Amino acid sequence: MNRNIKLVIAYDGTDFCGWQIQNNGRTVQGEIEAALAKIHSREVRLTGSGRTDSGVHADGQTANFYTDKDLPAEKFVYAINSLIPADVRIMTAEEVDEKFHSRFDAKMRIYRYYIKAGGICQPQHRNYCWRIRGVPDISRLNRIAAPLIGTHDFTTFTAAGDPSDSKVRRLDSAAFTAEGQFIVFKIAGNAFLWKMVRSIVGTIIEIESAGGGAAEMKEILESRDRERAGATAPPQGLFLHKVHYDEQAAI
Amino acid sequence: MNRNIKLVIAYDGTDFCGWQIQNNGRTVQGEIEAALAKIHSREVRLTGSGRTDSGVHADGQTANFYTDKDLPAEKFVYAINSLIPADVRIMTAEEVDEKFHSRFDAKMRIYRYYIKAGGICQPQHRNYCWRIRGVPDISRLNRIAAPLIGTHDFTTFTAAGDPSDSKVRRLDSAAFTAEGQFIVFKIAGNAFLWKMVRSIVGTIIEIESAGGGAAEMKEILESRDRERAGATAPPQGLFLHKVHYDEQAAI
Repeated sequence: MNRNIKLVIAYDGTDFCGWQIQNNGRTVQGEIEAALAKIHSREVRLTGSGRTDSGVHADGQTANFYTDKDLPAEKFVYAINSLIPADVRIMTAEEVDEKFHSRFDAKMRIYRYYIKAGGICQPQHRNYCWRIRGVPDISRLNRIAAPLIGTHDFTTFTAAGDPSDSKVRRLDSAAFTAEGQFIVFKIAGNAFLWKMVRSIVGTIIEIESAGGGAAEMKEILESRDRERAGATAPPQGLFLHKVHYDEQAAI
Repeated sequence: MNRNIKLVIAYDGTDFCGWQIQNNGRTVQGEIEAALAKIHSREVRLTGSGRTDSGVHADGQTANFYTDKDLPAEKFVYAINSLIPADVRIMTAEEVDEKFHSRFDAKMRIYRYYIKAGGICQPQHRNYCWRIRGVPDISRLNRIAAPLIGTHDFTTFTAAGDPSDSKVRRLDSAAFTAEGQFIVFKIAGNAFLWKMVRSIVGTIIEIESAGGGAAEMKEILESRDRERAGATAPPQGLFLHKVHYDEQAAI
């Protein structure tokens, strides 16, 4: 019987056309599926917790696949890593319940968005943060973000082309903190619409910069009008940090 | 009269053939001199504190040039940065004494070498550390490094082709510390021979891994025999961190 293997995956999205396999362009799913095909001598489908866009990074993307190989689950870490380029790494591999599904069973997704505010960005960080000129007040950023928390229709913060029927999502936290030379936005929720995190970040930064507050954010959210959102923040600041499954679902 | 401008420069060495300008290959000095030539509408020579090899990074390389432009010194930061690619950044610019020389006046150079010991290297760090399999004991690394401190003939730790007549250098500190997921080697001295830091790092790691100690390092140092050194550690772990000039020299 085929065993179900769950992978936690980190990648530098700079040179990828995103997670999802496509005919043209290098993708994370494509690289890993090519390695799985070599290991199994046949096509193996990898199911991710969700897509990430071109240029977006991950330190905790999750995916699963079925194998008939008689290999201890943790050995897949080395087997796959030896066949893929260094800008994507399998961090862990474990056997999970045969019904486990990376996408449908995800209970919470956590993203981080890195902002370098003011000053000059060290070259080694240039692909991993959004450089903005002004230096926002972190307390004000948090006050502006607060109305987003809870269950809302997030139509305002998605992009044309999002395939979801319902734009209602549950946001569990949305907080800015200072970490070394970066401002880090940590956002967690059950699921996210296409470009939702980057649209939220861009909107909060714009509201703060223009002197607005929580009332303006609340009004923009409730308008369900994409025209009211700020410019979408660039992909290189965004990391898919972790996908949580409850114990029931993961075993 | 021409003013003397001192720059502090950071770069990601990954896609550079080192600091020093050459006929073939992209170099940091070459990129900045090209920008200076555009600003001045003539060739301008940039003098660095020293070379760095292909793949080696800097967060505090120092260089100086002479200008007849009527521009406040700090404006050169933006003027140059707007003309060079994002993998090199001018961090600061200041006017210094007309006699200031980045190389000859340097009193101390500080390098950092980043090691990822055991585990899997996050893709975003892959170009900025040396991955080793074993996990060395940091106290032992420091004991092995200790005999290097002081003024010694460092012939053991240079590469064929080093142009220096004397191989005597003064090492002020050489210490390993744990920083997050990395082991960081901080080494400071008046000047370094070609590949000296990387040769020292490679040798210390080899001695530790083989169960040796300070006595072995002392013997290897005193042998002045390059064959006794360990394999040179790879360039991507190395950062030129800071160049110190005493106040007398800098003003």
